[in-house]
Amino acid sequence: MASSEGNKLWGGRFVGNTDPIMEKFNASIAYDQRMWEADINGSKAYVKALQKAGLVAQNEMDQIITGLDKVFEEWSKGEFKIKPGDEDIHTANERRLKEFIGDPAGKLHTGRSRNDQVATDMRLWLRDAISTLKGLALQLINTMVERAAAEIDILCPGYTHMQRAQPIRWSHWILSHAVALSRDVERLDDIRKRVNVMPLGSGAIAGNPFNIDRELLRQELNFDRISINSMDATGQRDFVVEFLFWGSMCLTHLSKMAEDLILYSTKEFSFITLSDAYSTGSSLMPQKKNADSLELIRSKAGRVFGRFAGFLMTLKGLPSTYNKDLQEDKEAMFDTYDTVSAVLQVATGVISTLKVNQIKMEAALSPDMLATDLAYHLVRKGMPFREAHSCAGKAVYIAETKKVSLSELTVEDLQTVSPLFDKDVSTVWDYIRSVEQYSAPGGTARSSITAQIEHFRTWLLAQKQ
Amino acid sequence: MASSEGNKLWGGRFVGNTDPIMEKFNASIAYDQRMWEADINGSKAYVKALQKAGLVAQNEMDQIITGLDKVFEEWSKGEFKIKPGDEDIHTANERRLKEFIGDPAGKLHTGRSRNDQVATDMRLWLRDAISTLKGLALQLINTMVERAAAEIDILCPGYTHMQRAQPIRWSHWILSHAVALSRDVERLDDIRKRVNVMPLGSGAIAGNPFNIDRELLRQELNFDRISINSMDATGQRDFVVEFLFWGSMCLTHLSKMAEDLILYSTKEFSFITLSDAYSTGSSLMPQKKNADSLELIRSKAGRVFGRFAGFLMTLKGLPSTYNKDLQEDKEAMFDTYDTVSAVLQVATGVISTLKVNQIKMEAALSPDMLATDLAYHLVRKGMPFREAHSCAGKAVYIAETKKVSLSELTVEDLQTVSPLFDKDVSTVWDYIRSVEQYSAPGGTARSSITAQIEHFRTWLLAQKQ
Amino acid sequence: MASSEGNKLWGGRFVGNTDPIMEKFNASIAYDQRMWEADINGSKAYVKALQKAGLVAQNEMDQIITGLDKVFEEWSKGEFKIKPGDEDIHTANERRLKEFIGDPAGKLHTGRSRNDQVATDMRLWLRDAISTLKGLALQLINTMVERAAAEIDILCPGYTHMQRAQPIRWSHWILSHAVALSRDVERLDDIRKRVNVMPLGSGAIAGNPFNIDRELLRQELNFDRISINSMDATGQRDFVVEFLFWGSMCLTHLSKMAEDLILYSTKEFSFITLSDAYSTGSSLMPQKKNADSLELIRSKAGRVFGRFAGFLMTLKGLPSTYNKDLQEDKEAMFDTYDTVSAVLQVATGVISTLKVNQIKMEAALSPDMLATDLAYHLVRKGMPFREAHSCAGKAVYIAETKKVSLSELTVEDLQTVSPLFDKDVSTVWDYIRSVEQYSAPGGTARSSITAQIEHFRTWLLAQKQ
Amino acid sequence: MASSEGNKLWGGRFVGNTDPIMEKFNASIAYDQRMWEADINGSKAYVKALQKAGLVAQNEMDQIITGLDKVFEEWSKGEFKIKPGDEDIHTANERRLKEFIGDPAGKLHTGRSRNDQVATDMRLWLRDAISTLKGLALQLINTMVERAAAEIDILCPGYTHMQRAQPIRWSHWILSHAVALSRDVERLDDIRKRVNVMPLGSGAIAGNPFNIDRELLRQELNFDRISINSMDATGQRDFVVEFLFWGSMCLTHLSKMAEDLILYSTKEFSFITLSDAYSTGSSLMPQKKNADSLELIRSKAGRVFGRFAGFLMTLKGLPSTYNKDLQEDKEAMFDTYDTVSAVLQVATGVISTLKVNQIKMEAALSPDMLATDLAYHLVRKGMPFREAHSCAGKAVYIAETKKVSLSELTVEDLQTVSPLFDKDVSTVWDYIRSVEQYSAPGGTARSSITAQIEHFRTWLLAQKQ
Repeated sequence: MASSEGNKLWGGRFVGNTDPIMEKFNASIAYDQRMWEADINGSKAYVKALQKAGLVAQNEMDQIITGLDKVFEEWSKGEFKIKPGDEDIHTANERRLKEFIGDPAGKLHTGRSRNDQVATDMRLWLRDAISTLKGLALQLINTMVERAAAEIDILCPGYTHMQRAQPIRWSHWILSHAVALSRDVERLDDIRKRVNVMPLGSGAIAGNPFNIDRELLRQELNFDRISINSMDATGQRDFVVEFLFWGSMCLTHLSKMAEDLILYSTKEFSFITLSDAYSTGSSLMPQKKNADSLELIRSKAGRVFGRFAGFLMTLKGLPSTYNKDLQEDKEAMFDTYDTVSAVLQVATGVISTLKVNQIKMEAALSPDMLATDLAYHLVRKGMPFREAHSCAGKAVYIAETKKVSLSELTVEDLQTVSPLFDKDVSTVWDYIRSVEQYSAPGGTARSSITAQIEHFRTWLLAQKQ
Repeated sequence: MASSEGNKLWGGRFVGNTDPIMEKFNASIAYDQRMWEADINGSKAYVKALQKAGLVAQNEMDQIITGLDKVFEEWSKGEFKIKPGDEDIHTANERRLKEFIGDPAGKLHTGRSRNDQVATDMRLWLRDAISTLKGLALQLINTMVERAAAEIDILCPGYTHMQRAQPIRWSHWILSHAVALSRDVERLDDIRKRVNVMPLGSGAIAGNPFNIDRELLRQELNFDRISINSMDATGQRDFVVEFLFWGSMCLTHLSKMAEDLILYSTKEFSFITLSDAYSTGSSLMPQKKNADSLELIRSKAGRVFGRFAGFLMTLKGLPSTYNKDLQEDKEAMFDTYDTVSAVLQVATGVISTLKVNQIKMEAALSPDMLATDLAYHLVRKGMPFREAHSCAGKAVYIAETKKVSLSELTVEDLQTVSPLFDKDVSTVWDYIRSVEQYSAPGGTARSSITAQIEHFRTWLLAQKQ
Repeated sequence: MASSEGNKLWGGRFVGNTDPIMEKFNASIAYDQRMWEADINGSKAYVKALQKAGLVAQNEMDQIITGLDKVFEEWSKGEFKIKPGDEDIHTANERRLKEFIGDPAGKLHTGRSRNDQVATDMRLWLRDAISTLKGLALQLINTMVERAAAEIDILCPGYTHMQRAQPIRWSHWILSHAVALSRDVERLDDIRKRVNVMPLGSGAIAGNPFNIDRELLRQELNFDRISINSMDATGQRDFVVEFLFWGSMCLTHLSKMAEDLILYSTKEFSFITLSDAYSTGSSLMPQKKNADSLELIRSKAGRVFGRFAGFLMTLKGLPSTYNKDLQEDKEAMFDTYDTVSAVLQVATGVISTLKVNQIKMEAALSPDMLATDLAYHLVRKGMPFREAHSCAGKAVYIAETKKVSLSELTVEDLQTVSPLFDKDVSTVWDYIRSVEQYSAPGGTARSSITAQIEHFRTWLLAQKQ
Repeated sequence: MASSEGNKLWGGRFVGNTDPIMEKFNASIAYDQRMWEADINGSKAYVKALQKAGLVAQNEMDQIITGLDKVFEEWSKGEFKIKPGDEDIHTANERRLKEFIGDPAGKLHTGRSRNDQVATDMRLWLRDAISTLKGLALQLINTMVERAAAEIDILCPGYTHMQRAQPIRWSHWILSHAVALSRDVERLDDIRKRVNVMPLGSGAIAGNPFNIDRELLRQELNFDRISINSMDATGQRDFVVEFLFWGSMCLTHLSKMAEDLILYSTKEFSFITLSDAYSTGSSLMPQKKNADSLELIRSKAGRVFGRFAGFLMTLKGLPSTYNKDLQEDKEAMFDTYDTVSAVLQVATGVISTLKVNQIKMEAALSPDMLATDLAYHLVRKGMPFREAHSCAGKAVYIAETKKVSLSELTVEDLQTVSPLFDKDVSTVWDYIRSVEQYSAPGGTARSSITAQIEHFRTWLLAQKQ
């Protein structure tokens, strides 16, 4: 046994040395140190259970806890020094503990494996991360809802297929994205249930041999449930995959919103102007003001999807229980958290500071967007919708042929299409009247939008409790 | 307006003709006809709401419902004839309705758009699909649990890193996969909540202009909730994405199980023998018996992930509301359902018919797998675990050097490692005693496995209610 | 041996029966029948090599070839009947051959395995598919180039970050997409090299035991090279993965082009109008004319990427040599071919029929797009570019503050920014003069565009040879 | 204009400030600093072209080059200090240049944009990276080929479907993976052609307005070709996507090899033993020796695929030309390079140091693996293969029923299957004779393996030139 390997956990086994590239390839300390706090908290709980099981004495437990508190303090002050041989956060913390308290440190890992330890650390870390992300998502939704409330009277074109479809309230657009985000919050709650399950006490694969009190551990670490099967508990990373998927879905929603806003901020649309704080210029073209913030938001769904897809591909190729391949879990989890966290904050900044150009929005409404209303006008006079739709289509065609706007067709023009047309057709050409038709729940009428806003305010209150 | 285009829904608008490749590219009837039943049921509910809103008369409603029942009957008998121009199931059903009842058919689509119609149809279809899949998953879990109960006394090696780690019960392995599947069932329930939300009454984008009673529609169609915002309701496909992700995750679990079983069915392991019903031979090598069923199960996680990844990529590039790109949703959804459904059934067949070679499993247990127990032996005599682990490691090294098995080391050999070793070390070399140590919840002791089985039996009962 | 299994290739081995779902799960005939021609041609070549090796007599060879020609004829007339037990195209063709010629059919598979047979069939099929796709891509490029040549004098805004950047020629935009496609053609040539390698003669894994003349086979089947190692030859699907990747890349290019065109066909841009043949209407809104063709093109990159990602994930999880999981290769390959083929044709139709609204394009040019030119004006007077860029930026700011266009700033206004400004600044405000600056290769000047067109015409000629 | 923003490239434009999260979100200096050398070399070439075009004087050029050399020196000594405001490597280098030489630095960016600059830098960087990776891949292939040559006489089972199929030479297995890697090298050469194309001189979108000599630039920077169209040149990232795909494919090959080796290093197979340098132990189980190196290799294909899939998804959603979303290109490119580079080196270490357990390999050969040979024995006596295959299958069945090995069947037993069997059947049961049958190119006979080794040696020589 080479003494040079003394600080590896499996010290007694090997006679060879590892190659430096392999060492680096194998080590995770560069990124898993982010879990230092979770690792220490997990160990503090574990030593209490060991004491209860009679595997460490009361005074040994006290020494270990005091020592772990010192390690904690070093990390929190940024003073912890990583040494060669600290291949992961677990090794590093235990090494430092031993430096502080000596031999009793060697009892901490009794009946525990890095397999259950790392799974526990990750779940503790992710549980906190989820809380933070939920808060940021709620903040964004709140911003959207209040903006929607404040600007409820602004009309703009609603687009389908990126073509002008029907007049809507601008608030309707904002809220449509808030709904998507509220589903993301719901999904985050669903995931949290499955994250907040404790694997500690599962050992490497077969379980814990010292009849450790897992219920005590659960309470100490504030988990909702304990894992059912030790092989599954140590070898599964569903909770990571679900979280990465969640990030992909959430950022796909924000990409969709960003795409709309990038479009609305083109010269051609000119519906909105981003705050300078969220725009950048060009190194070449002095007049350019680019919506970089929105483009970055748009791009990140790809990034996080990549983390997700990559990790799932790694998982897909594995047999059950712990395999070293699982080490890919952490960078993916951290990067997803960092990315979603930044995107939510930047999106909140963008939404809260952009200026709406109401004049441009309303100028973009055009009579042809009321062609459906023209059909409905006939429907209200008793014509079956299919026929009315066809008549309105013919009217559009006549207007195009005559190169006039749809509202400029005379009653005589319209009567060539259907004798049901009469002077009262003029009531159709009113955008406010048009939007006010859509008063069924979910629609764009003022009352319906107000109901949506109220729904969200109530929901937001409930979420914060 | 070319009369040849008379049966397209936007008939009044176009003067040109489409190119045949474009026609085929555009049409979805080849696959969306699977939703014929959902489409008819949605229309039957919708006409009731139209009648309540005064847009169709009672007798028109009756005609429409009777007509839809005839269309239903044709589909259920396999007699429905798709005609050129039936570009999707909605067009086809309405065309046929018109052939049956004439003009009143033209009132059915009043205030409705294919945008809310198709979203409704898909959700109705998927709701049923989810019920079926849940049933199949429960059947598989049940098979696993009962097999685990029946074979609780069989021991086998537990592997980590594909290396023999510790002795476990074979049932422990089975149940580890059942736990993963039970999470899939939980997730399916979570998804169902978000699938079972009704978009009908959202129109194309702005909502429904006739103050249709969406609550009536919800009850008729047995949805849990109605959608909050019409733009979101018609333009989002989160429920499809979630389902595709679910399929990817579930099949990744089954791929993992299949990988284990493929390994266990190699000549080298010989732990299990597949039923002939789930094996195939070779066109060249007469002795071959390949675990094709398991290989197919293993492969399908890739397939379904592909459907998921492809559809998410399509979604990622879109602005909000309905865009034709969304048409990619259906083939992905259908193929995922078909694939997961087949995999679950084949997996149930495989698990229920494979033969376990208990003798081979137990012959694969070897004393070195008790090295941890050797360390625990020292721990129980008061040695800190780290030191005990190192001593056990040294014992392994001595045994390797002497080319004897770990259990063949003499007490004298062991005492060169630690004076704590004594004759009682012989109690360590007992596999049953080893597994019985792991009695903490989740472990491999008989009592712990029994508790897991009871947990599942209770859970399965609750699921069926 | 159940006689009911008599028509399976491994007939002599099994005593059980397979379950019907497993049968269906296992069979590939539903899709691999597309390779009937390749399969027959491969067999015709193989029997010649068998005859040369003395394993079939001349008259047996003649019988087999004649029989295979009959099978061919049935397929080409659509008269081939698939029977139960025809699990794949290889089994089906050999079964039919036996029905035609009896016992000598049993000699055809000597020394061959389905492992080398299927790999050969797929390569033959894909080689043809690649030729077709190359032709379609060239047709599209040719359309683009000739359109670019015809419309070289139309100016329009060039966009970066979806913001107006600098005036460009419309042809410059068209050609930018042609360049991307020409790289796809190059890549297809690269792939073809690796597709056109013959695995036949590799058996199941170990090679061919009858010293078959693989060079003869190569010549018969017109392959460029023969595979180097039989284990690799039968177990690798790199050529499929490369093709699926190729499709993803090519369709990503066309998605990019489609995205531009969808934007340009919005009311707000109004740069182009799609032919009615490539547009569709709305079931609800009579005025709508949606660019469905472009949206479908845009969506398909996701679909094909999904096929690619799914298949790669399946491959990633495998050990070497043939595993049944490889069966996922064919549907992915066929669907990618069908999809790319349709997209290329529809794109050609769209590009060749869309109308350019030159007036709208040129009206979208605005003086602020010449801010870079204003900076260059100062650069030409000796000011370092960074300073000039800053001065131009200040001029933009003044114009915005004064709410005038950049070109309306007086010389006095400009002189507050830099004394170098003088009356000659008026020469800057000329869009044609602006584009003509960019005469370096690749730029937007007329001469540079003409050079690009010439480049493509020459390249296209070379490709067709 | 806030003076606090003075060191941003678009300094003259903005009045607001950016939010700190947005600043960080926007900045790329944390990772793009890796391209410092490429950025400086690109600038040195560019200033020469500016001088030739008369835009900088000879002495200014000299100053700029001298200044750039100083910047180079700082970077190479690790002394370059990044300052706030250095948002990317281009800004940082130009800022530092200005500190060194003052005003002339402001001329460097004349007619250049960060759009063509960054594309140039990335291509220069990647061109070097490709050379390095090619060298590492060749080193690995060379190791494999020489190992195959040295161990040509070792036989082992060949597996298909992870089941023992036919006896092969161990070298055959090694070379099968070398072939896959040699295709990766070929593909890398194909990619290099498309990487080594120069975008410099394309400006932001429209081209270069000063008639810069792009041919001069090309020669200075040693590119093969210059880009054809400036819009494409600045907006496309095909070369990055191709490289990421390449990494995914290459690592999928190495994952496949690692999977085989992990299997071969299980206790059950025991075909190989990894060097301690590439194994690690367990924190819990003293006897464990895990093939961590191979598991890490296996995992990395997922990681790199994730980078690829993520970036392609980002690209897929974009319109043409430069969009900020492209900033995702660099981390993906760097991480792929780092990962593939480490994997190739670790794989070389693993392959060159693992020990082969010849006795175990040969002990794993069993008579049933010669069932095909038994069929061939009948074929050589004139029986059609299908019939012979069936007879051999029956023999396998009889042996299984009698619980004897296939080679232990008596001639009488065999004659119940076919009267063609005679005493000479005993010649079949010889593994060396079996492998020697496969002498066709690509097969496992000694002569065929030797030919493969010679092929590789020649190829490797050619690659190095």
